[in-house]
Amino acid sequence: MWLGELSTCSGVPIPTIKYYLREALLPRGDGSGPARASYDERHLDRLRLIRALVGVGGMPIARVREVLAAVDDESVSVAAAMGSAHLQLSEDTAPSAASQARVDSAVTSRRWRVETDGRHGRAVAAALDAMEAAGSPMTDATLAVYVEAADTIGRADLAGMTDLSRARAVERAVAGTVLGEPVLLALRRLSHENQARRRTRR
Amino acid sequence: MWLGELSTCSGVPIPTIKYYLREALLPRGDGSGPARASYDERHLDRLRLIRALVGVGGMPIARVREVLAAVDDESVSVAAAMGSAHLQLSEDTAPSAASQARVDSAVTSRRWRVETDGRHGRAVAAALDAMEAAGSPMTDATLAVYVEAADTIGRADLAGMTDLSRARAVERAVAGTVLGEPVLLALRRLSHENQARRRTRR
Repeated sequence: MWLGELSTCSGVPIPTIKYYLREALLPRGDGSGPARASYDERHLDRLRLIRALVGVGGMPIARVREVLAAVDDESVSVAAAMGSAHLQLSEDTAPSAASQARVDSAVTSRRWRVETDGRHGRAVAAALDAMEAAGSPMTDATLAVYVEAADTIGRADLAGMTDLSRARAVERAVAGTVLGEPVLLALRRLSHENQARRRTRR
Repeated sequence: MWLGELSTCSGVPIPTIKYYLREALLPRGDGSGPARASYDERHLDRLRLIRALVGVGGMPIARVREVLAAVDDESVSVAAAMGSAHLQLSEDTAPSAASQARVDSAVTSRRWRVETDGRHGRAVAAALDAMEAAGSPMTDATLAVYVEAADTIGRADLAGMTDLSRARAVERAVAGTVLGEPVLLALRRLSHENQARRRTRR
């Protein structure tokens, strides 16, 4: 497809696509100059991933570049690429040892094979620190409920990922992680609305 | 307590507290002038709520003001205040009728007493639209898993809220909604890391 079609299919304006090409976030098409080159499904998938990261995830371009580098590194396995692309999603934080230990024990009891002192694990611990600092600490019981819910959700999210090609699986997984976040947050708010109503009508 | 102590206890710098007082987000203390007035637990709770909304929730000051107005309106019940304060958290969106119908049916099957065409319901539908547009639509089966997880989490979140005073319950609920979001998102990412590893080691 040509540049105009790529823009129509992806919903990304032509000047934005040109910017991504200049920044080398999007590989060049076949042919000379952006407007005369031809693009394929690969470009469309890549554009969708970039839009998910920038638009929904609010990620700065520099970090998008790091995510894409991990996605593109053919020397690593799908799972490892997914992991390292994915790690870029969490900010690097320095949580308290106490919260870190809580995450460790909550996650170990579910037998997760993760590095609890990696970026995501530290992000969980830092978020627990923030609740504590705000005077609304999360109890261990509630944390256990959260871990179990995240387990069920993660399983459902990755269930349909087996029959895809390497690049596609990684792109989908990373985009799915980012795109699913607003769904989950809005549902939790809706669930709070439900709980608040139930508590008054009784 | 004096202004300096309020700053120490809340972790909010004095100039920021003075700004909140000027903007009338924080009620004045007893006495003349911010530095000579005395403050109490009420001010501390309010400051923590504002920090949760601004710092973690990234909410603009104008919307914080609306949330606080709902929290402070004594003429409405705790649940209603919680609901309306809470609704300010979601952006106002215009989703597709198809996604709206999916949310409706997913939520009805769990017997939630919510307005699925209210702000949170529309936010869920809009997030589903975004996944569709990005070429990674969420299946009905996955959506059902998300709804059930949100149900369990919402129940746990509001479980400890019965024995608090009105203002405190509303403040805690709204702050808890905002503060719990990063915990849940980081746990979901950690869960994806777990799933990705399990899929390669087998």
